[in-house]
Amino acid sequence: MIESEVRSYCRSWPVTFDRATGSRIFDENGQGYLDFFAGAGALNYGHNNPILKQAVIDYIQRDGVTHSLDMQTVAKRDFLETFSETVLAPRELDYKIMFPGPAGANAVEAALKLARKVTGRESIINFTNAFHGMTLGALSVTGNSLKRGGAGVPLVHATPMPFDNYLDGLTPDFMLFERLLKDSGSGLNEPAAVIVETVQGEGGINVASVEWLRSLSELCQRQGILLIVDDVQMGCGRTGPFFSFEAAGIKPDIVCLSKSIGGYGLPLGLTLLRPELDVWEPGEHNGTFRGINPAFVASTEALKTYWTDDTLEKSTLAKGEQVGRALTDLALAYPEAALKAKGRGLARGLQFADGDIAGKVCRAAFDRGLLMETSGPDGEVAKIMPPLTVTDAELEEGLAIVDDAVAATLGVLR
Amino acid sequence: MIESEVRSYCRSWPVTFDRATGSRIFDENGQGYLDFFAGAGALNYGHNNPILKQAVIDYIQRDGVTHSLDMQTVAKRDFLETFSETVLAPRELDYKIMFPGPAGANAVEAALKLARKVTGRESIINFTNAFHGMTLGALSVTGNSLKRGGAGVPLVHATPMPFDNYLDGLTPDFMLFERLLKDSGSGLNEPAAVIVETVQGEGGINVASVEWLRSLSELCQRQGILLIVDDVQMGCGRTGPFFSFEAAGIKPDIVCLSKSIGGYGLPLGLTLLRPELDVWEPGEHNGTFRGINPAFVASTEALKTYWTDDTLEKSTLAKGEQVGRALTDLALAYPEAALKAKGRGLARGLQFADGDIAGKVCRAAFDRGLLMETSGPDGEVAKIMPPLTVTDAELEEGLAIVDDAVAATLGVLR
Amino acid sequence: MIESEVRSYCRSWPVTFDRATGSRIFDENGQGYLDFFAGAGALNYGHNNPILKQAVIDYIQRDGVTHSLDMQTVAKRDFLETFSETVLAPRELDYKIMFPGPAGANAVEAALKLARKVTGRESIINFTNAFHGMTLGALSVTGNSLKRGGAGVPLVHATPMPFDNYLDGLTPDFMLFERLLKDSGSGLNEPAAVIVETVQGEGGINVASVEWLRSLSELCQRQGILLIVDDVQMGCGRTGPFFSFEAAGIKPDIVCLSKSIGGYGLPLGLTLLRPELDVWEPGEHNGTFRGINPAFVASTEALKTYWTDDTLEKSTLAKGEQVGRALTDLALAYPEAALKAKGRGLARGLQFADGDIAGKVCRAAFDRGLLMETSGPDGEVAKIMPPLTVTDAELEEGLAIVDDAVAATLGVLR
Amino acid sequence: MIESEVRSYCRSWPVTFDRATGSRIFDENGQGYLDFFAGAGALNYGHNNPILKQAVIDYIQRDGVTHSLDMQTVAKRDFLETFSETVLAPRELDYKIMFPGPAGANAVEAALKLARKVTGRESIINFTNAFHGMTLGALSVTGNSLKRGGAGVPLVHATPMPFDNYLDGLTPDFMLFERLLKDSGSGLNEPAAVIVETVQGEGGINVASVEWLRSLSELCQRQGILLIVDDVQMGCGRTGPFFSFEAAGIKPDIVCLSKSIGGYGLPLGLTLLRPELDVWEPGEHNGTFRGINPAFVASTEALKTYWTDDTLEKSTLAKGEQVGRALTDLALAYPEAALKAKGRGLARGLQFADGDIAGKVCRAAFDRGLLMETSGPDGEVAKIMPPLTVTDAELEEGLAIVDDAVAATLGVLR
Repeated sequence: MIESEVRSYCRSWPVTFDRATGSRIFDENGQGYLDFFAGAGALNYGHNNPILKQAVIDYIQRDGVTHSLDMQTVAKRDFLETFSETVLAPRELDYKIMFPGPAGANAVEAALKLARKVTGRESIINFTNAFHGMTLGALSVTGNSLKRGGAGVPLVHATPMPFDNYLDGLTPDFMLFERLLKDSGSGLNEPAAVIVETVQGEGGINVASVEWLRSLSELCQRQGILLIVDDVQMGCGRTGPFFSFEAAGIKPDIVCLSKSIGGYGLPLGLTLLRPELDVWEPGEHNGTFRGINPAFVASTEALKTYWTDDTLEKSTLAKGEQVGRALTDLALAYPEAALKAKGRGLARGLQFADGDIAGKVCRAAFDRGLLMETSGPDGEVAKIMPPLTVTDAELEEGLAIVDDAVAATLGVLR
Repeated sequence: MIESEVRSYCRSWPVTFDRATGSRIFDENGQGYLDFFAGAGALNYGHNNPILKQAVIDYIQRDGVTHSLDMQTVAKRDFLETFSETVLAPRELDYKIMFPGPAGANAVEAALKLARKVTGRESIINFTNAFHGMTLGALSVTGNSLKRGGAGVPLVHATPMPFDNYLDGLTPDFMLFERLLKDSGSGLNEPAAVIVETVQGEGGINVASVEWLRSLSELCQRQGILLIVDDVQMGCGRTGPFFSFEAAGIKPDIVCLSKSIGGYGLPLGLTLLRPELDVWEPGEHNGTFRGINPAFVASTEALKTYWTDDTLEKSTLAKGEQVGRALTDLALAYPEAALKAKGRGLARGLQFADGDIAGKVCRAAFDRGLLMETSGPDGEVAKIMPPLTVTDAELEEGLAIVDDAVAATLGVLR
Repeated sequence: MIESEVRSYCRSWPVTFDRATGSRIFDENGQGYLDFFAGAGALNYGHNNPILKQAVIDYIQRDGVTHSLDMQTVAKRDFLETFSETVLAPRELDYKIMFPGPAGANAVEAALKLARKVTGRESIINFTNAFHGMTLGALSVTGNSLKRGGAGVPLVHATPMPFDNYLDGLTPDFMLFERLLKDSGSGLNEPAAVIVETVQGEGGINVASVEWLRSLSELCQRQGILLIVDDVQMGCGRTGPFFSFEAAGIKPDIVCLSKSIGGYGLPLGLTLLRPELDVWEPGEHNGTFRGINPAFVASTEALKTYWTDDTLEKSTLAKGEQVGRALTDLALAYPEAALKAKGRGLARGLQFADGDIAGKVCRAAFDRGLLMETSGPDGEVAKIMPPLTVTDAELEEGLAIVDDAVAATLGVLR
Repeated sequence: MIESEVRSYCRSWPVTFDRATGSRIFDENGQGYLDFFAGAGALNYGHNNPILKQAVIDYIQRDGVTHSLDMQTVAKRDFLETFSETVLAPRELDYKIMFPGPAGANAVEAALKLARKVTGRESIINFTNAFHGMTLGALSVTGNSLKRGGAGVPLVHATPMPFDNYLDGLTPDFMLFERLLKDSGSGLNEPAAVIVETVQGEGGINVASVEWLRSLSELCQRQGILLIVDDVQMGCGRTGPFFSFEAAGIKPDIVCLSKSIGGYGLPLGLTLLRPELDVWEPGEHNGTFRGINPAFVASTEALKTYWTDDTLEKSTLAKGEQVGRALTDLALAYPEAALKAKGRGLARGLQFADGDIAGKVCRAAFDRGLLMETSGPDGEVAKIMPPLTVTDAELEEGLAIVDDAVAATLGVLR
């Protein structure tokens, strides 16, 4: 095997994939799989969505500029206008838009840099089981100890605070955090920013309540700390609304987007910033792949197709409820197995007693033609993240496979 | 302007680009520009190269998987096989291949992580005027002070050593470095690795001689330090051979590739490692955009088209010589202006007395229909990096514009 | 004024002191002051204790070696034997003894170094409002933000946890800490050690309960984390027993001693280590002032005089109770003033509503001939730390002045 | 053995010392040793100097305050006045004086903190084979790899530059350093300060020429970098004049003193600062042992006895010349042994081919009744640092032993 030992997903699904459309992906032998993983959230509009596909092909066909660094292009201008009119304006958000590089980690790196530059402070507050990326800055605010260990240098500029519902449910939210901030003798380095996911995807589909998010936002404002929402996995409609934080009615200072913002699975990252924070010098942060125009084209088309009304949002919420009910039923059906249904919108998970069982369930699902993956610190949560464009029939089909896989794994029939 | 103040290239070239083919890019009014910038090295095969274009369109058309994380796909397998047979085997290189993420910075971050993991050391040696990327790990080995300042935290795990010919030309190469390494009282933290570009693109088209590179490689071997060549900008034939280090006859422990490896301007990053170094745990480094299959397809096609014989290599060397002669002539023509021709292959530069003059030359070139950009610590070097597929006529045309632009700027006719 | 602006105590007590004996210090005009500060805990046996004084003079008189680095001397051997027989053996402690340098900060620096060397980890857990010293390593585990700010570099290798009773009194102790340790996704760097004061002197006379200390010790053992007790201020009998942790029945892995260990106010620092931890290379930590023989002589004499039976311990506890009652009475006497009596043994404090009031009380006390100082993050606690050798009459006299000073400051008579 | 494995000098000289006067120290059996080590520079006025001894005993006898933190005392005031009049004023130095703690490392820690605070930068330039102390801040600017390794955390805020004559003698001094500073792309973090010893004691008696020091001082002024001279070992007359930098005619921004400044081997540290740099907040740096009054008394007496005229300075220079000649003769006598005489004033060294030989010479000297120790990265230099008060007879006696020890070790007679 010439590919490095670091490879992982190809170990879970040991086939060679070839084609894909919508919620379905096919291996080289023509065997189809329902995809309830959706590129870890990068394929909210499904594989090779035909509307976006046509736009991309048309663009390439007519020799539209493909690679443009941060030059101005027609495709980029269209994207900026569409994003502004379709996403920002209706939500009364006046963010400035930065293209920090092709991936979510770039959006996070740029957010952290800017927060530090604006405040003159170094320290960041992250949360338990956070995942923000693998580059050194993003990794330093990520929780997973295997991945942190990979850094090879001490990751030292972040302090983890408990995510919502991390402790016993009795300890008041943020009591410790606010006390540490107010106490000049606490030893907590004054933070530049807090970085948070509203639902922790890699961390195990942990959902922050709207009240918790609102309290966090107010705390940040009171204490003069910037609030960064990393919406890389949960943005672009994964939880229903375009931004996952809309339900909480908060307006973060900085927002990170990537994954599905490119529409077609092509790399694109955005860092959104309150205008007052836009203190960058020209070129102070740059990169070769900030302008992938086919991604702009697909993204523009996706925004126009899915975000000019609330059809997708409502559908996602409804389908999410459906998945949620199915998982709750499963949990109730195996009272001795300590299952737990988790999630919001179409970011759902089923928590098992340990990672071993969850892994077996995912393998059983794969054997039955369904892709899903584990997350959580011990891999104890099976994630259910279909494309938002999944049909009802596909959803039924997939949930039935989940049922079977759980039954087969836990060794009993419902 | 909704785009952040951090934008830069769009300030140099204040038009809106639309279409592009080969060495030519057109703005929305149909005005064409010769592109001697080539996506900062990401477009070695030209804009929308027709052969690659057809392969990409065919792939998308037939619903080939677009986004696949690090799953195995037919397109990835083809790429791995082609890269192995076309690039590695003929050069007797047995690297294992890691997909670290979509961009050059990811390739560098992964290289640094691995070097630290393998050696158990934290410190890295970089070189004056190095450029390796904007994420925190890559930035820490980058020289530019504006960009370093953007980090907002002290960048502390790297020590810069003088690049080839940095000092007076009399000081023996590596004398200080080797003395510091051998002296247990020197205070230099024992380095995990040295990271080097064979030609510093962003640093001002500074060329390391093959002797210097060879000495560096030997020093690393003697001292048990890993040698990382960042071939992100200079690889994929920019200096002639596929890898820029081939001329020196060295075999780095780790090689970083990106930019033109994707062929079509689509994001792709590779980290190549000596097999013995492949101590990664599965998933210890990961990322959403490690498998952009249209990039695999374009890359495979590019390798098959351009790298099965030495036509492109020879052509690049010949054209490079041509550019080199033209720049040398220019330098001789303005003896009072302290011009200096620099470069290797088709990575060429003309150094001016300061960044102000170089900037004016680039603007004058733009006014005459040629894109080229400055580099170097003070922006004092005008870079000439056309696609490798540039035609002789285009090269003549472009060099004539350079002549004019220099003449117009220096205020005298040749 | 030729002395730097950094000077502080001389601002609180703007006279020039000349002589001192026991609990009393005299200024150059012969004005005496009762000293309830006792060199911040360095003068547990009083100023110029006559027994120790004679031993020191005899030693100097007979030309005993004064300065000896870490050479073996008769005075050091006597000290080691006496410390071993008088302090360690009766408490069934088999610590090895390291002379890390002349001050408490050296003892802490050595403890942190060793904990990191033994465990191969970098991170340290400290507690809110901890004080461990001003050198960079010790400062990094100190809470005070003014002092941390003085470092001029980010202090990054420590994470503060809540000290006993820091929050609402309802949150279970160590719930968060233990959860963070057990959760491989928490993002807490695995700690080498926990460093704790049993009573935080500079932090505001915050007392850790014996239950809390026992839980902390058990947690450290369960998790394989070293427990360092910084007994620099609270050791040598300040809270009653020789070590302040004796009441909790715990045996720390490493103990830091300084201040009163020198007996006569002469600099001496000790780091005590479990024998299994003694992995130092010869000279791996060194220093010029590790062997101040007059301090050894005074220390030996103090141990023989005060620690061969439990007279001093009982007396300290009794006097401590007396002070505690007096402070509690004061707190009850001013119900509207939110006073709070704090402390253990002869480490006592009276907490006021803010640092302004506490400062005024200390100044009023000074005007009445009593030295005492504030501590706590906002200087809101007036510390009462007389020599352990204070007489009953002196204690009465001093407490009466405290009464008066409080009354004068709060503007009402009891 | 109850003392930690970290002990070192007691391994070289395996006897138990008891008494000492002047240049002679006696073990418990009455065996005398000439001391050419002098407490690593802490005993410039000899062991238990009778003049200082009387002053110290008188002070203790009359119950002068012993321990005073940074309170004002008569003894401290006398010291400040005497230091000002005797040392600073005649040299036209207007430094403010800070008492940073009892040892040299404290003086260095305070200097680094202040330099960082004043400049707002973190990075420090140190020199190869520098030694500045064992606390984390001081250790980070120290070269020795064994001692650096003891830190247990990466030491990252300092970059070593070559000390005078470190390379081939041909490379122009500071060429690299100044180039790195001027080049905005060099990757060198902008330094707050340079810290330097004029003669590196622990580093192997490496002497910086006055020209080199002058160039360094000028470079620092040109570049706006603070110059810190660590005169802990070489100050107080060790090289002849009171400050070791006087010969170069430079005025450092910050000066660190300790070791012999206490006169009698008692711990005392001073950080001297240009008045404009005195931006400390009150108490921003503090410590328990900043005011050891017996040390003030001894220091004042030493200044009055030895520094009101140039007798000691001239004597030191003359004796230094004598030692230098003797060592040069030795080096010439063993042409095949590659000996090298090094040093200035009474900081002298004889360099051997390796540390093994130097160690044997020191052991042979010990067997013959002379204490001397090795230094240098491999312990290859035997240091000769007698008290400045050494008599001519003692010097002759000691040098004769050195002769014998070398002869015995090298196995040949001269």
